[in-house]
Amino acid sequence: MRKTLIFGHKSPDTDTICSALVYADLKSVLGVEAQPARLGDVNQETQYALDYFGAEAPERIEEVGGDVSDVILVDHNESQQSADNLQDFRISEVIDHHRVANFETKEPLYMRVEPVGCTATILNDMYKEKGVVVSPKNAGLLLSAIMSDSLLLKSPTCTEADREAAYELAGIAGVDVETYGLDMLKAGADLSDKSAYD
Amino acid sequence: MRKTLIFGHKSPDTDTICSALVYADLKSVLGVEAQPARLGDVNQETQYALDYFGAEAPERIEEVGGDVSDVILVDHNESQQSADNLQDFRISEVIDHHRVANFETKEPLYMRVEPVGCTATILNDMYKEKGVVVSPKNAGLLLSAIMSDSLLLKSPTCTEADREAAYELAGIAGVDVETYGLDMLKAGADLSDKSAYD
Ligand SMILES: [Mn+2]
Ligand SMILES: [Mn+2]
Ligand SMILES: [Mn+2]
Ligand SMILES: [Mn+2]
Repeated sequence: MRKTLIFGHKSPDTDTICSALVYADLKSVLGVEAQPARLGDVNQETQYALDYFGAEAPERIEEVGGDVSDVILVDHNESQQSADNLQDFRISEVIDHHRVANFETKEPLYMRVEPVGCTATILNDMYKEKGVVVSPKNAGLLLSAIMSDSLLLKSPTCTEADREAAYELAGIAGVDVETYGLDMLKAGADLSDKSAYD
Repeated sequence: MRKTLIFGHKSPDTDTICSALVYADLKSVLGVEAQPARLGDVNQETQYALDYFGAEAPERIEEVGGDVSDVILVDHNESQQSADNLQDFRISEVIDHHRVANFETKEPLYMRVEPVGCTATILNDMYKEKGVVVSPKNAGLLLSAIMSDSLLLKSPTCTEADREAAYELAGIAGVDVETYGLDMLKAGADLSDKSAYD
């Protein structure tokens, strides 16, 4: 049985965690056995998003296990940001929004890199292309990723596509873009402040 | 004025030449000033396709000119197959169907690599996504690319997507898939035979 593992970069941020979770879910709906994973601790901002929308963090792995046939990279492509034993596995897909560097495959693959502010924005498009409806929970996770990468839609990397996706996803998730986004960023900031006094 | 140059690999084949021509045309329809180019001689198979559908070969260049702001790579991504001075220019897009290697950008880009048999198959999808109708001439060029890369739809790299695109494009171009494809491949083969006796 071929198992596909989907993960983002080391020192995971909200886009990396939420995109792995949501893309694994989309793949499952499409009939592909896919499991999300993560290469590091969940930060407090991301934990807030997971708790808010009732999601579990993906399993933490140190390296890719031997029962995996294919890996899908989300939110990164550079090998130094990825699993240490990546070169031992077939990379079947990459969904990302960063520059491409230090990346290479032995075989053809599906690689989708777009100059937008967040991987979640690309995933939102993929749901539409596949004709799959985004659940409120997944919409909330994708929205969280966009609000995080775009710093509340204000970062210079934020595009019109990210903004449109955020408002659309907030409607599905049933939250207010600004209120939810600010609460999520605060949850991350509050706890970093606390840890400074630990 | 920003000028975008679109080209395929060195030792150009029919997919490289036709994809550069057709994608430059699609870009122009979409309002982007884009020019096709080529990095080597047009082979006899490709010349047959160009003549058959009334197209001109793109301009031959030795390297990318200084008036170019952006380059778009089609049908390749590895730097050793590309223009020698590629690293001096911003790569804004890649449309390809090969493994990814020896490729790197300084900035985010639109990179679309799919595990299909031909770049032209991806371009056919892009026309649909953009809601642009493929002209009979462009359909003929895309069909030629598919028949060439897939060796008349028989190569192991040929996918169902390539087959479907070929039949659809042949309908638009007004030719028979098998008859036209065989004539095109013969045109290439005949002249290689000849040159062996030169
Ligand atoms: Mn990230
Ligand atoms: Mn990201
Ligand atoms: Mn080629
Ligand atoms: Mn090709």
